[in-house]
Amino acid sequence: MTDSLPTIVVVGAGFGGLQVARDLRRAAARVVLIDRRGYHLFQPLLYQVATAGLGPDQIAYPARAILRGQQNLDFCMTEVRQVNLVNKTLETGFGEVRYDYLVLAIGGTPNYFGLQSVAQHAFTLKDLSSAVNLRNRILGAFERAVQEPDAERRRAALTFVVAGGGPTGVEMAGALAELIRLVLTKDYPRLNFKDVRILLLEASDRLLSGMPPKLQEAAAETLWHKHVEVRFGAAVADYDGDRVLLKGGEVIPACTLIWAAGVRAAGLADRLGMQQARQGRVPVERTLQVAGHPEVFVVGDAAYLEDGMGQPPPMVAPVAIQQGRVAARNILRALAGQAPEEFVYSDPGTLATIGRNAAVARVGRWQAHGFFAWLLWLGVHIFWLVGFRNRLLVMINWAWDYFFYDRGARLITSE
Amino acid sequence: MTDSLPTIVVVGAGFGGLQVARDLRRAAARVVLIDRRGYHLFQPLLYQVATAGLGPDQIAYPARAILRGQQNLDFCMTEVRQVNLVNKTLETGFGEVRYDYLVLAIGGTPNYFGLQSVAQHAFTLKDLSSAVNLRNRILGAFERAVQEPDAERRRAALTFVVAGGGPTGVEMAGALAELIRLVLTKDYPRLNFKDVRILLLEASDRLLSGMPPKLQEAAAETLWHKHVEVRFGAAVADYDGDRVLLKGGEVIPACTLIWAAGVRAAGLADRLGMQQARQGRVPVERTLQVAGHPEVFVVGDAAYLEDGMGQPPPMVAPVAIQQGRVAARNILRALAGQAPEEFVYSDPGTLATIGRNAAVARVGRWQAHGFFAWLLWLGVHIFWLVGFRNRLLVMINWAWDYFFYDRGARLITSE
Repeated sequence: MTDSLPTIVVVGAGFGGLQVARDLRRAAARVVLIDRRGYHLFQPLLYQVATAGLGPDQIAYPARAILRGQQNLDFCMTEVRQVNLVNKTLETGFGEVRYDYLVLAIGGTPNYFGLQSVAQHAFTLKDLSSAVNLRNRILGAFERAVQEPDAERRRAALTFVVAGGGPTGVEMAGALAELIRLVLTKDYPRLNFKDVRILLLEASDRLLSGMPPKLQEAAAETLWHKHVEVRFGAAVADYDGDRVLLKGGEVIPACTLIWAAGVRAAGLADRLGMQQARQGRVPVERTLQVAGHPEVFVVGDAAYLEDGMGQPPPMVAPVAIQQGRVAARNILRALAGQAPEEFVYSDPGTLATIGRNAAVARVGRWQAHGFFAWLLWLGVHIFWLVGFRNRLLVMINWAWDYFFYDRGARLITSE
Repeated sequence: MTDSLPTIVVVGAGFGGLQVARDLRRAAARVVLIDRRGYHLFQPLLYQVATAGLGPDQIAYPARAILRGQQNLDFCMTEVRQVNLVNKTLETGFGEVRYDYLVLAIGGTPNYFGLQSVAQHAFTLKDLSSAVNLRNRILGAFERAVQEPDAERRRAALTFVVAGGGPTGVEMAGALAELIRLVLTKDYPRLNFKDVRILLLEASDRLLSGMPPKLQEAAAETLWHKHVEVRFGAAVADYDGDRVLLKGGEVIPACTLIWAAGVRAAGLADRLGMQQARQGRVPVERTLQVAGHPEVFVVGDAAYLEDGMGQPPPMVAPVAIQQGRVAARNILRALAGQAPEEFVYSDPGTLATIGRNAAVARVGRWQAHGFFAWLLWLGVHIFWLVGFRNRLLVMINWAWDYFFYDRGARLITSE
């Protein structure tokens, strides 16, 4: 009986994949969700883990718990190594998996633009362990600095370079500045905090490129107030772990480079044997199907689909979620013998926070910056965090930080 | 000026070392607290991290934050490699440190009694990363089992052997049984939970050797009700990662062995060049001073000092704290030209929990088991957790688990 049902395999339990799995809950099919981590990660808050504002457990939730009770679903924690589009099979850590429909919601990975030295030495905000590693590095730098007699080496240990002026870079630089000025100054009373430098490097001449100019300027202004040196027209050419070399020849001695300069489709996209678009993304039809393979859908960061202006949608959660809905609906329609629908992005606006009381927000044509935008950001993020308990703990953590200028998670762990 | 002050070095920020540092807050001395981790760990709750009841951040707190505002104190995060008792210096990761008084509060490490294969393959509850590793292993075992077609291998993946019937082993076995029966049964509806086995091996013929016989039996009874197979007279002879060999020849196929069979003094005790007592501990005078070195004190798990009955005090937090107080007082007395006092252990009682609603407690001659003992255990542990925020988060986590049979921290992380 069960074997006659079609098998729908969803790869990835991020925002897109989770949406697909949920929207297929009443499908007359066997749904298999595959994820190598086993938990859904609230990636937009990784920078909070890296700056000791939240513990890693607070922005992750087990996929099995989220999808508990969904009768037609099997979860499988393993890595997908290869997709065979002709045979309709996946090669996984647990052997071969056959599919009738496939949704690739594989997400993104840092884009180093071919800079091997950066890939080797820089820190990123890719997953929980990279965020915890970055947290250990930041806090460890202060432990080293406090024991370092050489002034040059001490300054290099306390120089943090953030590459990339998009939302991740701006949020990271802002949160790092606050961690240092509001919390670590109390933990290290013997340290001269004039030795601390935070640089935010942006290759173009503005931050947050998707935002209206007024908000771009507000963001730069707020970062300056927090003593972040915002540098425009600055691109990294090389990094050896101790010195950042900029295109143009400038050298910045810095023990920590945080790479937030770009994202590309996850590695599996390179192994599909398909022509790839910009950022390694997989070109899809307006229906999110892969050309020539109507049974294969791609959603989220890994999907490439130009809008009327020739632009792909940004690599953000709302796009992944909306595309997930369309992919699920098109599979249900296919099962019912109906024609697929087209994806049209409905932009809910953008938000970025630059620390305590300060954010920039655009919703449609409405825009705001400062405290009100920050409240909006806080509400939206707490609302979206999966699982009520996490929401409560996150709220307590933030309320605590807000009132007491403290960070509970500032542990240097060897994990 | 400052250089004429004596330097008191305290090694270890556990219960003992922290107590010493705090009690020296008004000393006319420079106090240096050295710890390789940089945070105080509430070790008695490590088993909660291993069973996904608490996140690692919730049982650890930065040493700098705990000791913030203590003017005469410097904290130093580094490893102490060697102690030179003659020159009164320590060799650390940041170079040589000179002391006038030294307190070794270096704690314990798992005692494998020479079983190399166990040291290599078994899991322990030694520190945060070993607890997180164990959590990953336990949860990962279920992910593997759900995909494993071979029945023998599936049963081995789901067999958890806990070696040692002391408080750690009893608490670990009880918490593991609850995690599985109350939470994971919901996460893995396709799995046959009759394949799950939890064994608690105890070499002697009773659990919780320090407890009154009535409570020992109550503990065993409670574990049986939770489907933990308690085996007396069972000692591990060898383990290759797949099969536990018992003395006597019995073989138990099990992918997870959790070693809770003993603790010995931390490795630094072996490098002092001193005669060591049982469990590698350092013999001290009744004043906690090392014979021939009145400027050196040892407190906590690493100190060996027999009571009137020829028994050393147990390796538990109350002993470390009380010894820390005496060591600090004796240093203050020495600075004032007074004779040292002797340590006398005032036993506050013992407590062990065996999961939801069940614990055993002894306070003086009063003893209890069941729900009331569990409430006492809960209160004592929440009270002792350092830092108000942690206390609040821990309370919320536990209340949540209690009412909803859920575990928020059940993430398999690669950290």
